[in-house]
Amino acid sequence: MGHRLDDVSAPARLAGPDEAISTEELVLAARNHGIPLEALRYDVTPPGLHYVLTHYDIPYAERSSWQIALGGRVRQPLLLGMDELRAYPAVTERVTLECAGNGRALLTPRPVSQPWLVEAVGTAEWTGVPLRVLLAEAGVAPDAVEVVFTGADHGVERGVEQDYQRALPLDVALGAKPEVLVAYEMNGAPLPPQHGHPVRLVVPGWYGMAHVKWLREITVTDTPFTGFQQAVAYRLRQQSGDEGEPVTRIAPRALLIPPGFPDFMSRTRVVRPGAVTLEGRAWSGRAPVTGVEVSCDGGGTWHAADLDPEDGHRWAWRRWRFAWAATPGHHVLSARATDAEGHTQPLDQRWNRGGFANNLVQRVPVLCLDPDDTA
Amino acid sequence: MGHRLDDVSAPARLAGPDEAISTEELVLAARNHGIPLEALRYDVTPPGLHYVLTHYDIPYAERSSWQIALGGRVRQPLLLGMDELRAYPAVTERVTLECAGNGRALLTPRPVSQPWLVEAVGTAEWTGVPLRVLLAEAGVAPDAVEVVFTGADHGVERGVEQDYQRALPLDVALGAKPEVLVAYEMNGAPLPPQHGHPVRLVVPGWYGMAHVKWLREITVTDTPFTGFQQAVAYRLRQQSGDEGEPVTRIAPRALLIPPGFPDFMSRTRVVRPGAVTLEGRAWSGRAPVTGVEVSCDGGGTWHAADLDPEDGHRWAWRRWRFAWAATPGHHVLSARATDAEGHTQPLDQRWNRGGFANNLVQRVPVLCLDPDDTA
Repeated sequence: MGHRLDDVSAPARLAGPDEAISTEELVLAARNHGIPLEALRYDVTPPGLHYVLTHYDIPYAERSSWQIALGGRVRQPLLLGMDELRAYPAVTERVTLECAGNGRALLTPRPVSQPWLVEAVGTAEWTGVPLRVLLAEAGVAPDAVEVVFTGADHGVERGVEQDYQRALPLDVALGAKPEVLVAYEMNGAPLPPQHGHPVRLVVPGWYGMAHVKWLREITVTDTPFTGFQQAVAYRLRQQSGDEGEPVTRIAPRALLIPPGFPDFMSRTRVVRPGAVTLEGRAWSGRAPVTGVEVSCDGGGTWHAADLDPEDGHRWAWRRWRFAWAATPGHHVLSARATDAEGHTQPLDQRWNRGGFANNLVQRVPVLCLDPDDTA
Repeated sequence: MGHRLDDVSAPARLAGPDEAISTEELVLAARNHGIPLEALRYDVTPPGLHYVLTHYDIPYAERSSWQIALGGRVRQPLLLGMDELRAYPAVTERVTLECAGNGRALLTPRPVSQPWLVEAVGTAEWTGVPLRVLLAEAGVAPDAVEVVFTGADHGVERGVEQDYQRALPLDVALGAKPEVLVAYEMNGAPLPPQHGHPVRLVVPGWYGMAHVKWLREITVTDTPFTGFQQAVAYRLRQQSGDEGEPVTRIAPRALLIPPGFPDFMSRTRVVRPGAVTLEGRAWSGRAPVTGVEVSCDGGGTWHAADLDPEDGHRWAWRRWRFAWAATPGHHVLSARATDAEGHTQPLDQRWNRGGFANNLVQRVPVLCLDPDDTA
């Protein structure tokens, strides 16, 4: 007869064998959004086109009164307003950010959560203060092992009421290559509300769950963090009882800009016969991308694409191009990235119960019209 | 054996009685996005939170080389670059824009298209040149009846390859209250790519389909326009063979900011017992909003909400507030707008085959916890 959180907050589940997208998944898809794939044309994703995933609500935040409390296992706790944060020397880094759940809705069986297809990615120029500078000023205690980050977004997930919290190992938090940023600008402007206004974490190379938005607290701890988003969510599990491996760095992925023009409803692409330049982006949070291969026959044969030269933006995607001679008929286009550690995108799904860190190759169906179809 | 557009571009259809959301609908939901309802808190929607609906692809556009050709039944055709457009005196208008398909995915049976729930809305400050100024300079011929607007986005829809095109009756195009704008700024900045960069139409009070983005041509005609988006799509039909009424101005609607905090997956809201201020927005493209009523018992009883005073922004939404005394249990919250012409939101669905101009009242399920549930 009671009215408790469990009434509205269910355990994680997998969709049934023939279960279509639920209304709950649609509600998430209408709120959160991916990058329209044609926007892969931009080196830096324009505002509003970068993917967004908000666990709970976008909190209301006044820049003038916002403070970050840095405490825990430190010599000298800090309480920083936004003007104080801006007084530190600023660093700008171009970073490609991808949601750990990207590709989830294409898995079989489908984990029921935010139903991403392939589009949960974007690249921005983030400006802020290196976290290691703030930690050095506070003085990290010798027994410290992790740093916990608390955001202002509040909600309930699988029965657990919480502010969004994630931790990083101390060596990552103190790292210089890459530097973790406490960021207050995106593409040269104050953070928009949905990207963490007024301040968020940016962890180059890591999936999005680590980049805590609406950052309020930074807490150095002497024990590993066991909060919901660390120990329950964002783990690679085959069975629900498994401890699982933590989700960390971004696996390599290439995406192509669907060529030609789309049908409104099916989004199937249409091209006319002849030379079609295929173009896209590739990235990895583990090691630099060293190669992209393209298939125009559904994965039957693969051909090397031309990678743009390195441009010094180690943590951002790289552009690639490939010349395709389109002939009338139905085709499936794919691209496949490989990084310097030898990680390559799989052709068969790598499944886990959360649908995390999935980097199955994209498949883009294209119809090449007959030469006489002037429509 | 041929490879033709009809292979990938199907007729419009309704979902079957038990048909869940299809992958095609999910693909559209992942590309296009609504306003996160908590962003109804802002008078003017911040960049990236305003709803976006793109029929085809967002075209690539260079501001420096963009031109608008104004021709047809005029004395003197004009060819305007962006600098020439900016040389005219500028007007700024705050406008609430809503997609004509808002609410479609809640209809029974469901028209299969972009599966909006209630969130396809946003408000922006649009700056540009009044269309009537450009038409006056070109000199409209006495036999003119409509003005056709052509965008640069190209695709195929139900077998018809097209650039996106829509027309307005001449009296609307020449209107002074409201003025139609040829707009090049949104919220004081150049238009973002997804909102029509570098220039678009803004038609205060009309649903989104009239606000042609990536505007390339303005053509005055002496016959009614019969293009796809005018004569086939965006008509109110009960049967597929009907001629149907055209979709024009925005019907009244109120939305409330879901109170409390959400469950991640179900988005069900959770509050604690006591005073809860409900807040939202209401708008109508037909006549000013004159009242908003709120129900906290699923539509059983209705109570007048407090409307903010008129602020001179006739074409933008108005804020309203209502004090709710939340008691433990499950509740359904709704709000309902009425405008000065006496139009009120229906409590039962008004159905048409396109799912257009639907303004059924929003329903927000809320769990109020027992006083002792400290989670």
